[in-house]
Amino acid sequence: MDLEFIQRLVKKNDTKIVMLVMDGIGGLPRETDNKTELEAAYKPNLDKLASNSICGLHQPVGSGITPGSGPGHLGIFGFNPEKYQIGRGTLEALGIDFDLKPGDIAARGNFCTIDKNGNITDRRAGRISTEKNQEICKLLSKNINIAGVKIYVETVKEHRFLIVLRGDGLKGNLIDTDPQEIGVKPLEPTGGPGSEKTVLIVKKFIEQSKKILENHHPANMVVLRGFSEKPNWPSFPDVFGLKSAAIAAYPMYRGLARLLGMSLIQAGEKIEDEFTTLEKNWKDYDYFFIHIKKTDSYGEDGNFENKAKIVEEVDHQIPRIMKLNPDVVIVTGDHSTPSALKSHSWHPVPLLIWSKYCRPDNVKQFGERACITGALGPRLPAVELIPIALANAKRLEKYGA
Amino acid sequence: MDLEFIQRLVKKNDTKIVMLVMDGIGGLPRETDNKTELEAAYKPNLDKLASNSICGLHQPVGSGITPGSGPGHLGIFGFNPEKYQIGRGTLEALGIDFDLKPGDIAARGNFCTIDKNGNITDRRAGRISTEKNQEICKLLSKNINIAGVKIYVETVKEHRFLIVLRGDGLKGNLIDTDPQEIGVKPLEPTGGPGSEKTVLIVKKFIEQSKKILENHHPANMVVLRGFSEKPNWPSFPDVFGLKSAAIAAYPMYRGLARLLGMSLIQAGEKIEDEFTTLEKNWKDYDYFFIHIKKTDSYGEDGNFENKAKIVEEVDHQIPRIMKLNPDVVIVTGDHSTPSALKSHSWHPVPLLIWSKYCRPDNVKQFGERACITGALGPRLPAVELIPIALANAKRLEKYGA
Repeated sequence: MDLEFIQRLVKKNDTKIVMLVMDGIGGLPRETDNKTELEAAYKPNLDKLASNSICGLHQPVGSGITPGSGPGHLGIFGFNPEKYQIGRGTLEALGIDFDLKPGDIAARGNFCTIDKNGNITDRRAGRISTEKNQEICKLLSKNINIAGVKIYVETVKEHRFLIVLRGDGLKGNLIDTDPQEIGVKPLEPTGGPGSEKTVLIVKKFIEQSKKILENHHPANMVVLRGFSEKPNWPSFPDVFGLKSAAIAAYPMYRGLARLLGMSLIQAGEKIEDEFTTLEKNWKDYDYFFIHIKKTDSYGEDGNFENKAKIVEEVDHQIPRIMKLNPDVVIVTGDHSTPSALKSHSWHPVPLLIWSKYCRPDNVKQFGERACITGALGPRLPAVELIPIALANAKRLEKYGA
Repeated sequence: MDLEFIQRLVKKNDTKIVMLVMDGIGGLPRETDNKTELEAAYKPNLDKLASNSICGLHQPVGSGITPGSGPGHLGIFGFNPEKYQIGRGTLEALGIDFDLKPGDIAARGNFCTIDKNGNITDRRAGRISTEKNQEICKLLSKNINIAGVKIYVETVKEHRFLIVLRGDGLKGNLIDTDPQEIGVKPLEPTGGPGSEKTVLIVKKFIEQSKKILENHHPANMVVLRGFSEKPNWPSFPDVFGLKSAAIAAYPMYRGLARLLGMSLIQAGEKIEDEFTTLEKNWKDYDYFFIHIKKTDSYGEDGNFENKAKIVEEVDHQIPRIMKLNPDVVIVTGDHSTPSALKSHSWHPVPLLIWSKYCRPDNVKQFGERACITGALGPRLPAVELIPIALANAKRLEKYGA
């Protein structure tokens, strides 16, 4: 079932769908009591919700595949991550919540060090500070001047930056200028069919940058990689007929939501703030994506206790969602991040979908093992999540007579 | 897995497969006792059969998709409903069990009212009676005369009728003449590549109809839509190597079974009659599709009690099937029709497959929730049903050496 198939069946009504994403929620059991982070957390509200829901576990990409944040979210948003691939440059732009426009070309840049012969001696310019990076980016932004194109040079972190080319007739099919080794010169920009204009612009950018950075050793040169056009994807609100809002505090998730055409609304600093935002904007949207980052961050830190505590904090907010009288509530994650692994993992992700019409299964607890015997099954392809939510919101027409 | 793949593995033997379809069988729990129609019904025979079967729930089209009767049945017959789409004209023909031949073009017609300028004033001719419709259809059938083509004009109901064009070199790629609004003239017939002959015939049909109906106000004109050729699909008996019979009392299901190449045998009026038909024809076929309509009808009426009673009535007939010593018995539905929703729905459909070799699971009851943990899983794609039945009937060769 592709997006076109679903889109043809979509109808609109005034129902509300809430999708609460605890990043990296899936975990692994600890030795002491054989419980995962989610199983160990005291979460009476989520367990009660699970009792009245259909439960299961989903796979964002597929069996055995560990998703990055991009593919993980694309999957639960109904966009097949194998088909909808995000170029590295675009990903970098999303990561700093840069507002890409159609036709924009983005690339990831590194400040690097070259010797007097032009050969690279350090691909990361000694990992300069982010402050130094900001200073250089300002300098380049001010002094680079290339006719017919607007160039954005934006700090990412340490030696990493983003460039975005905005102008007519640009193409993203350029190869990397980063040779990924030292002792050699950066590669000359070249590209595929139709890229002549873009190649010329990038050449000028590199020449001018080299001159401007001449006296900024160790950051005296730039290398670029992952050129990519802003993806020309269908928009989430268009495909699914949902006026959609993203409540996410972190730039990557805001960037991704924006790329899919969702509106960004202010998340706030604390977890509870996100739910205040939900309440304040309740009337204005059909679909709310609420992103909780810290379950993943603590998972990456290997901090089992704190990951479980974040679950408890989120659990405390569940009644605030239910008080708004939503039609469909989804609680899940974009992938697993077991604190035992300190990284994203391939493990299926716990999932519940609540609605008045969901035909609840026998699962009474929101946990990895409890969800296995739920109505959604132990490895639901994540892309099926939104169609099921739409059906429960009565937003899909019958297929065929 | 496509039909060609299965077909290559099919071998024949003298086993018998019975597929009992309770239309719209899936339901939703009622408030009083949290039981669905199927769970509430007293059905000792189905529960016993479930105990010796593999159980699960299937999805006729896909997650979240509410199937019409056509796609729902195509799915359980092993024909992917996304690939095998039925045009509106064809569907109308199936609905009155009209025997379409290869090359036939069918379209749905409306009798409508036009004013003296030829503009439509009522798209449904005041919803004339079915009797009046029959009278007009006879009149048209008798008086329409177009060289080189045989035209059938058949009553459907009220203002609705079916036309079928039978002749050489006809095409179904015509646009609707029904403008779907009033105050304008019907649209002139036009069509895509190769449709010239068909367009000419349809023009003549409309001109002659207009003259014949001149004095039949309010039904003084016709509009046509959903032109479609009889689908040129593989036949169910050919693909699966099964001499197949349909026992169905309602025209739509007889029409669909006939379209797939099954033989139609007399169903009888009552539910028990269908099983008598089964007994009488037991020796003559390999596969029996038995269709029970009333579970769906009562679901559509919102009548929980009566839907459950139909299940009990069907349950009472199960021993008659088993006494025939079948090799494989399938019990399921073509979609869910919860009486709480009074309509078809997207909910997965309970399913059991019994055979001597099925390797029974731990499910002891034939119900929506009980089947979740069965061996067939909670959301089996419906197209996998027939291959599993064939395997259990030892009608599939090993794949590869």
